Amino acid sequence: DQKHNKFSSVIPPVIRVPSGSVIKVDTEEASDGQLHRKAILYDLKNIDFGPIHPLTGPVYVNEAEIGDVLAVDILKIELHDYGWQAIVPGFGFLSDRFPNAKLKIYKINTATGTTMFNDKVQLRLNPFAGVMGVAPETAEMLSTIPPRANGGNMDDPNLTEGTTVYFPVFVKGALFSIGDTHAIQGLGEVCGTAIETPMTITYRIRVLKDKPAIEEPQYETDDYYAVTGFGETIDIATKKTVNYMINHLINNYDISAEDAYMLCSLVGDLKIAEVVDVPNMLVTMHFPKSVIDQL
Amino acid sequence: DQKHNKFSSVIPPVIRVPSGSVIKVDTEEASDGQLHRKAILYDLKNIDFGPIHPLTGPVYVNEAEIGDVLAVDILKIELHDYGWQAIVPGFGFLSDRFPNAKLKIYKINTATGTTMFNDKVQLRLNPFAGVMGVAPETAEMLSTIPPRANGGNMDDPNLTEGTTVYFPVFVKGALFSIGDTHAIQGLGEVCGTAIETPMTITYRIRVLKDKPAIEEPQYETDDYYAVTGFGETIDIATKKTVNYMINHLINNYDISAEDAYMLCSLVGDLKIAEVVDVPNMLVTMHFPKSVIDQL
Repeated sequence: DQKHNKFSSVIPPVIRVPSGSVIKVDTEEASDGQLHRKAILYDLKNIDFGPIHPLTGPVYVNEAEIGDVLAVDILKIELHDYGWQAIVPGFGFLSDRFPNAKLKIYKINTATGTTMFNDKVQLRLNPFAGVMGVAPETAEMLSTIPPRANGGNMDDPNLTEGTTVYFPVFVKGALFSIGDTHAIQGLGEVCGTAIETPMTITYRIRVLKDKPAIEEPQYETDDYYAVTGFGETIDIATKKTVNYMINHLINNYDISAEDAYMLCSLVGDLKIAEVVDVPNMLVTMHFPKSVIDQL
Repeated sequence: DQKHNKFSSVIPPVIRVPSGSVIKVDTEEASDGQLHRKAILYDLKNIDFGPIHPLTGPVYVNEAEIGDVLAVDILKIELHDYGWQAIVPGFGFLSDRFPNAKLKIYKINTATGTTMFNDKVQLRLNPFAGVMGVAPETAEMLSTIPPRANGGNMDDPNLTEGTTVYFPVFVKGALFSIGDTHAIQGLGEVCGTAIETPMTITYRIRVLKDKPAIEEPQYETDDYYAVTGFGETIDIATKKTVNYMINHLINNYDISAEDAYMLCSLVGDLKIAEVVDVPNMLVTMHFPKSVIDQL
């Protein structure tokens, strides 16, 4: 059994691998089978929140020591053929406006990478893992709902194939887990759910000893470098995010803090990854590689 | 004299035009000449905030009645050859971390559309107007610093050439003004300033009688439709923004509010336009035309 659904330093690893290993995992959808292909509104209304966010892992990386950075290269993401989306009463960014439960079951065309939202609207999918994280320092069994410094339920739709995600390492072996895979989601995930679906993900995991320490997850693509910040309000998360980008620039390049701040004002883009994973919102700043490459 | 620097219903128009007119304006930079080509830190430290945001206008549009929507098509933006950027003590998103005044004067290459940030980093410019707005209902002389329902200092770097911006009309004639032009700015404008520069802008102004009423500015490009919301916190602004996008979808297309909410969760992207125009932050949601076109 490779599943668990808490973040804690005391969950034993399912596998131990050397840095540089490539790992292929099947992930469950967020309800762990409760909202199956034939689920109906009754199933949603009677859902047990206990099993939410079954994660595949944790993976112990031999070289990972506290204070290192763990890099996860998202090499390949393969869709499975069904998904669901729901409005859950009391949950979601506009829960006051939308008090009623609603459930949609989606059939996913894995050949074309599309699904139908309704009988008119076809959506081109953009799959990613809503939850990726390492073990926190604590032995407490933490809920997977809010994102934290160890990552977790970041729900950032930018974390697609081709992205490298960086995590601070809080415990020996890092203990990386992944799950809560989403076929498509906008920045914000405003109704509280994406198209929730099982998926097969291939990733490479690397321990970085030389990268300056980071406080919360960061990531990059060919086009930009990104930092993230979580907080109980979007304002708090945004403030952390801007500070993290300035720190990233001054820690890695020959630039003053003031110039980094001014340059963030010119080319750094603040985006809201999610506003629904109570109590923590997640904000990200993207900074173009075209500028970083000149520093 | 075509300049003013307040938003108010009682500022007399400089020109009266019919709907559909194309107008070409020169805009001043935000300091109205105080931070000129040869300005030094002394000029920044002694700046008078009174003249901030000189605006070109207002333009009275003959057909515009209260409750209409005013569309402004940004047809062409031409750069001028200098700009400035500053850290102003007490101003900016991280004013605690950056208490010291700093001023940069930029030479802009209008042929290549670039400038040098320092001796290493060249920036490709993306000019737009930080302030665009119509007159508010009030005769009070409102500061141009915070964005409001009438638009104003939205500082959204998406409002570039090729964008159409929509404003609610609060007074007869609409009284549209433009200024505070920025050569380049990231989403957020975190240090409080962009590259502030004079510019020449050509726009078409149209009165729309049939478009469902809007509460705050919205805009669109070939790729997406966007709504904006301002608020004293980013959280407040975000909540308004999500509600506005749902309202836009249900007011213009055959879709239920619940489906609009779920679809926003799948393809609507929340971005932070600015976090420095106290007391109001501005958030925007972008929704892809590829999906809207199927509704």
